[in-house]
Amino acid sequence: MRTKAAVALEAGKPLEVMEVNLEGPKEGEVLVEIKATGICHTDEFTRSGDDPEGLFPAILGHEGAGVVVEVGPGVKSLEVGDHVIPLYTAECRECEYCLHPKTNLCQKVRATQGKGVMPDGTSRFSMLDGTPILHYMGCSTFSNYTVLPEISLAKIRKDAPFDKVCYIGCGVTTGIGAVIYTAKAEIGCRGVVFGLGGIGLNVLQGLRLAGADQIVGVDLNNDKKEMAERFGMTHFVNPAEVEGDLVAHLVELTGGGADYTFDATGNVGVMRTALECAHKGWGESIIIGVAPAGAEIATRPFQLVTGRSWRGTAFGGARGRTDVPKIVDWYMDGKIEIDPMITHKLKLEDINKGFDLMHAGESIRAVVEY
Amino acid sequence: MRTKAAVALEAGKPLEVMEVNLEGPKEGEVLVEIKATGICHTDEFTRSGDDPEGLFPAILGHEGAGVVVEVGPGVKSLEVGDHVIPLYTAECRECEYCLHPKTNLCQKVRATQGKGVMPDGTSRFSMLDGTPILHYMGCSTFSNYTVLPEISLAKIRKDAPFDKVCYIGCGVTTGIGAVIYTAKAEIGCRGVVFGLGGIGLNVLQGLRLAGADQIVGVDLNNDKKEMAERFGMTHFVNPAEVEGDLVAHLVELTGGGADYTFDATGNVGVMRTALECAHKGWGESIIIGVAPAGAEIATRPFQLVTGRSWRGTAFGGARGRTDVPKIVDWYMDGKIEIDPMITHKLKLEDINKGFDLMHAGESIRAVVEY
Repeated sequence: MRTKAAVALEAGKPLEVMEVNLEGPKEGEVLVEIKATGICHTDEFTRSGDDPEGLFPAILGHEGAGVVVEVGPGVKSLEVGDHVIPLYTAECRECEYCLHPKTNLCQKVRATQGKGVMPDGTSRFSMLDGTPILHYMGCSTFSNYTVLPEISLAKIRKDAPFDKVCYIGCGVTTGIGAVIYTAKAEIGCRGVVFGLGGIGLNVLQGLRLAGADQIVGVDLNNDKKEMAERFGMTHFVNPAEVEGDLVAHLVELTGGGADYTFDATGNVGVMRTALECAHKGWGESIIIGVAPAGAEIATRPFQLVTGRSWRGTAFGGARGRTDVPKIVDWYMDGKIEIDPMITHKLKLEDINKGFDLMHAGESIRAVVEY
Repeated sequence: MRTKAAVALEAGKPLEVMEVNLEGPKEGEVLVEIKATGICHTDEFTRSGDDPEGLFPAILGHEGAGVVVEVGPGVKSLEVGDHVIPLYTAECRECEYCLHPKTNLCQKVRATQGKGVMPDGTSRFSMLDGTPILHYMGCSTFSNYTVLPEISLAKIRKDAPFDKVCYIGCGVTTGIGAVIYTAKAEIGCRGVVFGLGGIGLNVLQGLRLAGADQIVGVDLNNDKKEMAERFGMTHFVNPAEVEGDLVAHLVELTGGGADYTFDATGNVGVMRTALECAHKGWGESIIIGVAPAGAEIATRPFQLVTGRSWRGTAFGGARGRTDVPKIVDWYMDGKIEIDPMITHKLKLEDINKGFDLMHAGESIRAVVEY
C-alpha cells in the first residue's frame, strides 16, 4: 500500500512529507493506522543528528495511538479494530528480561529495532522508487500507517481519545512510571523534580498520584511554575534565584533531603545535584533525561556509602503491554491529567512547526493528528 | 579507674601503649572490659593521618568484643556480665533513621561520636596528667576498658569466643551485611567481588550464605585465590592477566553481567568497573570500600538508564543491636566462618606489629587479645 509519512531524509534537515510504500504485516506483525502522534525530544535528538546511533532515511515518531487494520499470520493477541499504542519498549513476556521482576527492558526485538528494521531484518517502508526507508524505535508513528511486531503494541480501551492518549506512548508513561514503577514512591514521601518540561510535569503528577507530601519542582524558567502547580508541584525553586549552594537549599527545603529525586533535564551536572539532595540513608535519585553522547556523571562515593542510591529509568520502568492500558485507564478515570499538556495540534504537513515550537519552548506537547 | 590502652598521640606516629584514666559510665552509658579487638584498615586510615576528619590524641579501635562491668544510671537493656560487641553504628530505635525501613544509619549519637566524645560532649579518657584523650568511632577498643552509650552495644550470647566474634564488630558484618541486608541477594544470583582482603572474603561468604550460583572474585594478587575459594569463590579473575577489556570479560564470564557486584577496594576506578559489569536491566553495584578524600566516581548515565543501580553500604546495612547478635549465631551455628581469617594474635604491647602485618599484606585480620 501507499501511505503518507514525514520522512527524515538526512540528519539535520527538516522532515519531508511524502507518499511512501508500506508492505503489509508479515508473521507476527500488525498494520496500524496511526490516528495521532506526539512530537518528542527524542525524535528531535535523532532528526538533528545529535544521536550517534541515528540512521537515515527513516520515518521517526514513537509516541502514537491508532487502530489495527490488518494482522499478519500468527498474531493472536490483537484483531482488526483494536485500539493500540505502539511501544518502543516491547513486551514479549518470554525473554530473560521480561521474566525478571526488576526490569522492563524486553530484549526480544531490540537488536533489529536498533537497526531500523523489523525482526526479520527488513524494512516495510520504501520510497516510491524502491529505496528502503528505515523504521524508528520500532514505531515510526510519523507515518499514517505503520507496521509493528505484535509484542510492540499495547491494546487499549476504545473510548480513549487518540489525540490525548498518544502521549502515553512516551512522555506520560516515562514520567509517571519513573515514580510508580521505578521509584515505587510511597504515600507521604517528598520528591524533587529537576526540569519542568513534558517529562517533568508527568513526574510531578506521578508524585501526586503516589500521595507525596511535598513535591518540589526545579527549573530555570519561572514561566513553568503555573503549569507545574497544576500538576501537583507544592514548591518551586529557580536555581538562578537561590543564594548559596543549591544542594544545601534543597536539603533544607525538604527537611533533610528528598526521598526521591528525578532528573528530567539530561544535564549531567543537574544529575549530580539531584543525587546529592536526596536524603542521607535512604534517598533515591532517578535519572530520566538522556545526556549528550560521552557525558559522564560523577560524585563522591561517600554520597552512596551514606545511603543514597543512583538509578535510572527507561519508559518509566513500565511493561508496555501490561502497564500502558492501566495508565490509559488512570487518564480516563481522572486520576491523571493529559489534556493541558497537549498545547498544540498540527496536521502532518506542518510537522516541522512542531519541532520549531519545541525549540522555542512554546509547546509542552505538539500532537499531529492524521 | 586506670586502664591500659594504645594511644594515637598524633597522626602518622605509631600507637603508644600506656596507662590512662577512664571515668566510669554516666547516664545511659556502660563500662566494658574489652577482651579482644581486631585491627582494621579504618584504624590505619585515621592513624596514618589520611583521614581528614581524624582527631588526636585518641584511642582507636572499633572492632571489639567484651564484657559489661558496670552500667550507668538509666541503662535498661544491659547488665553486669553481659557479653557485648561495641557498635560504631549505634541503634537507638527511636530516631528518624532507626524508624525508617531503608537505613541502618542511626543518628542519635553521631554528632558527638564524630567529635570523639560521649553524647554529653565530654571524653571519659584522659592522660595521667589530665589531658583529655578522645574516643574513636564511639568504641575505642584499643583500650582494655572503655565506656560506650548503651545504644552502641550489641548483646551477644556468652558462649561465643571473643577472639573470633570481635571481627563481627566491623569486617564480618560489613561484608556479609552488604550481601544480606543491602543487596538482599537472592538464591541463584551471580555476584562479583572486587578486592579479596578481609572485607572481600566476607562478601564472598555472604554470597555463599545467600545461595549464589556464581561467586567471582577479582584481585591483582593470585595468592588470594586459595583463601577466597575457601570462602565460596567459584571463579577467580586477575585483571592483570585479562587480555582486553575487564568489563567485557566479566560480563561474558557472568553470562551477561552479575546480579550484584561489590567494591571492597576503595579505588574509584574499580568502583566504575564494578558498576559496568553489573547486568543490564537489574544489576546492582554496591560500594563498600572507602575512597581517598576528594576522589570521585564517574560513569555514563546510560549505565543507569539501562537498569543498573549504584548504591553503597555502611556497616553492611546491619542494625547493630538487632543484627549483630544474629550474625554471632550464624557463626556459632557454622553458617559462616571466621577462624581462618584471624591470621594473627597479638598482645596489646605489640599492636603496632599488627599495622605492619596489614601493610605487608601478611594478615587478613590481626587480633589483639587483652
